[in-house]
Amino acid sequence: MAIDKDCIFCKIVRGEIPSFKVLEDDRTFAFMDINPINPGHALIVPKHHAPNIFETPDDWLAVSMVTARRVARGVEAALKPHGMNIVQANGPGAAQSVFHLHIHVVPRAKDDGIKMNWGIRPGKMDEIKAIAEKIKAALPA
Amino acid sequence: MAIDKDCIFCKIVRGEIPSFKVLEDDRTFAFMDINPINPGHALIVPKHHAPNIFETPDDWLAVSMVTARRVARGVEAALKPHGMNIVQANGPGAAQSVFHLHIHVVPRAKDDGIKMNWGIRPGKMDEIKAIAEKIKAALPA
Repeated sequence: MAIDKDCIFCKIVRGEIPSFKVLEDDRTFAFMDINPINPGHALIVPKHHAPNIFETPDDWLAVSMVTARRVARGVEAALKPHGMNIVQANGPGAAQSVFHLHIHVVPRAKDDGIKMNWGIRPGKMDEIKAIAEKIKAALPA
Repeated sequence: MAIDKDCIFCKIVRGEIPSFKVLEDDRTFAFMDINPINPGHALIVPKHHAPNIFETPDDWLAVSMVTARRVARGVEAALKPHGMNIVQANGPGAAQSVFHLHIHVVPRAKDDGIKMNWGIRPGKMDEIKAIAEKIKAALPA
């Protein structure tokens, strides 16, 4: 398992930077995006460091997607959004900002009109924390 | 393996409706989106019918994501886009239009400004076919 000591997501996985964690297992880690495009926006990362989908080994990619679905189920149960996207971005055209593979769980509001490159706008920490608690309580077993 | 005889993607998988196939293995099938948001836009489906990410079994979800990455590598090699998104949509808020789980591989052009719900605009069949051939030729072994 590769770790990049300067990578912000590796630091979050190792607890060196705090996060609103939603779940963790042997190979994956899920936490709230602190720049949420919509309430409930979460991120899933493999514990193995790789910059993008092209360089992530098959098994790490597969377990990350399965964890993303588990988080999506929790978001669905907790927030009952009007829809849900699973999104993963690579390269400048997709506005990738952290170079450690991550999968976004993006709850959708009706007619929210969001762009694929949605831009970064900081959320309110107390609101994000409260939503994380709701999602954790709603995660499937 | 569940099949829905009325599902358009099940019909594509079984060859009952033609498609520009990019690759096929025991469990997954990849083909060009005929309403491409950008050139090279491809779709990956599991052969097992399930309407969305919530109802797709873990193993089918995992193999679909691994195939999506394989297609993404082919698109990357063939078209050298400015970026790439992997996108999966569930429910009306995400404008899901076919109720068989599918993963979009979306090559990005610089500043294309596309929306998460990008809308459906038919592409030109001869162009899509030519791009499919380029992607197939560039797929990793």
